[in-house]
Amino acid sequence: MRAADDFHIHLRNDSRRTPMAIKAVTMGGAARVMVMPNTEPAIATADDAHQYKRYLRDLGAQFSIHTTIKLTRATTPEMIEATANAGVLAGKQYPLGVTTNSADGVRDVKAMYPVYEAMQQHDMVLSLHGEVPDAFVMDAEAEFMEELLAIHKNFPKLRIVLEHITTRVAVDVVKSLPEVVAATITDHHLAITLHDVAGTQLKPHLFCKPLAKRPEDLAALNAIVREGHPSFFSGTDSAPHLIGQKECASGCAGVFNSPYHMQFLATHFATNNMLNRLEPFTSEFGANFYGLPLNTREIVLLPKEITVSDELEGMVPFKAGETLRYTVKWVDS
Amino acid sequence: MRAADDFHIHLRNDSRRTPMAIKAVTMGGAARVMVMPNTEPAIATADDAHQYKRYLRDLGAQFSIHTTIKLTRATTPEMIEATANAGVLAGKQYPLGVTTNSADGVRDVKAMYPVYEAMQQHDMVLSLHGEVPDAFVMDAEAEFMEELLAIHKNFPKLRIVLEHITTRVAVDVVKSLPEVVAATITDHHLAITLHDVAGTQLKPHLFCKPLAKRPEDLAALNAIVREGHPSFFSGTDSAPHLIGQKECASGCAGVFNSPYHMQFLATHFATNNMLNRLEPFTSEFGANFYGLPLNTREIVLLPKEITVSDELEGMVPFKAGETLRYTVKWVDS
Repeated sequence: MRAADDFHIHLRNDSRRTPMAIKAVTMGGAARVMVMPNTEPAIATADDAHQYKRYLRDLGAQFSIHTTIKLTRATTPEMIEATANAGVLAGKQYPLGVTTNSADGVRDVKAMYPVYEAMQQHDMVLSLHGEVPDAFVMDAEAEFMEELLAIHKNFPKLRIVLEHITTRVAVDVVKSLPEVVAATITDHHLAITLHDVAGTQLKPHLFCKPLAKRPEDLAALNAIVREGHPSFFSGTDSAPHLIGQKECASGCAGVFNSPYHMQFLATHFATNNMLNRLEPFTSEFGANFYGLPLNTREIVLLPKEITVSDELEGMVPFKAGETLRYTVKWVDS
Repeated sequence: MRAADDFHIHLRNDSRRTPMAIKAVTMGGAARVMVMPNTEPAIATADDAHQYKRYLRDLGAQFSIHTTIKLTRATTPEMIEATANAGVLAGKQYPLGVTTNSADGVRDVKAMYPVYEAMQQHDMVLSLHGEVPDAFVMDAEAEFMEELLAIHKNFPKLRIVLEHITTRVAVDVVKSLPEVVAATITDHHLAITLHDVAGTQLKPHLFCKPLAKRPEDLAALNAIVREGHPSFFSGTDSAPHLIGQKECASGCAGVFNSPYHMQFLATHFATNNMLNRLEPFTSEFGANFYGLPLNTREIVLLPKEITVSDELEGMVPFKAGETLRYTVKWVDS
């Protein structure tokens, strides 16, 4: 099959995490990524994006990289124009204080309208972490739907991706909107609910933002993937955190799922009798949305069991210690 | 005021945790406790209970101790009779696999009916961890209400305590039943929701079973305490866990709140303008339910700020590092 696109990944920018995060992309079967800008300092300009891509290349990234910029209260329409002209495909907006490095996030979405206007004009994709600041954690995504609908109504040609959706209501809303509005779904949100995170024992390596939700939400996410709806495509939201950042008194949000990305998805799709939906979900719908050519690199998913590593360079991957039913083999390697 | 009763506490039985757990009781202003039986091995018989009380005394416990036995599939009506005759006030039932040391818990409540019959006959209190095994974590308590109602209907004279309630529905159900059915409420469930546990960062020291729920549940718990309803009284569910048991890949459930129990509750009740409800909640309603004389020992809550310790003998107390507005002084010490 075509190698995977990962249209939502965190690679960070430090020597303890980024090298493994880069290796994990290839290990998990992805040939192209869209990398998130919430590094420290953030990727805020075209120049930042250019330098970040070079930094990742220098560390040995063997995949195609699309950068993004972080939209903050300091972002101007002029910055959007310059960044779009430099070839950056998307700007990512975080709600204030909701996730990692979001202290400069957005509280008042309306204040961003001039920025959205510029993005619409220059056909830059608005990438949204769709949670309302200060809302109760189980409701924050659902409450964001009103804002999503308002943005779409005011900027009907603006292409929007609602990232890492976790709820039935988000599925329903995105499905109801024209093809300019899409959503990404992570690996783990196809597999877990809050019960897996905090049902009996607390599992920090499954803790992420948005938090996994209820069984009916899990069912809705799997149902839309099974349907093969082209507005829903794969973005892992993979986030490398060192064990000490997860197993501590204030654990960071993020699941490190990229190392076994396609191994896990193939297993999950096979278990759920929807393997025919895998390639469109991981390697076609997203590229089509972003107007990119499909990957030419190929992988083979071999039906051969593997045990997921307990640890990779100080980080615990999703499904650590468990058995997956497929391995990834690169055709060109 | 009268010193506090804590009608639901875990003191465990190991040298690394129990000594501090014992000290914490007095530190937090309690003169009498009902100690839970889910030690390893469990307290299952009158003899176990007697030995456990002696163990706690030998470690220096300076408070009145009421023991409980653990009800399992192995408990017989004869054991209930013997235990009740030995003066054990309550038997605690855990659902299978839902919390710490519950692998021998109960799946089929109806199979326990002969045991309940004996408890009703010998006026032994049925203490329930009210969650349905395998139910989604946010629904498990609500789904247990049907079982509670069935038990009460079949054993209308059996005294029942629904322990550490976390939901509005549990408040409503217990309120609707006669005075033979009561509930305990923990310190932390008067103060936190799931958002505090997993809203932005993951907080293992706030993770407990039942998991803290939604804002409307928090409001209902505080409202019933403010109402001064005699069927709702204090039980901390304080559970000592070493840092390594909490800050790890599979964290244990339990909040260690006993060391600052009355310091916290006084602060919370004062902040919410219901200080007049404190003494009945902590020192009267529970004793009345269990038919015990009220405490004669007294404490003074001094309006003097304290900072909660970050750590006590390798364990992190509830509200660690925060400021509370009251200190506890023993009148007789």
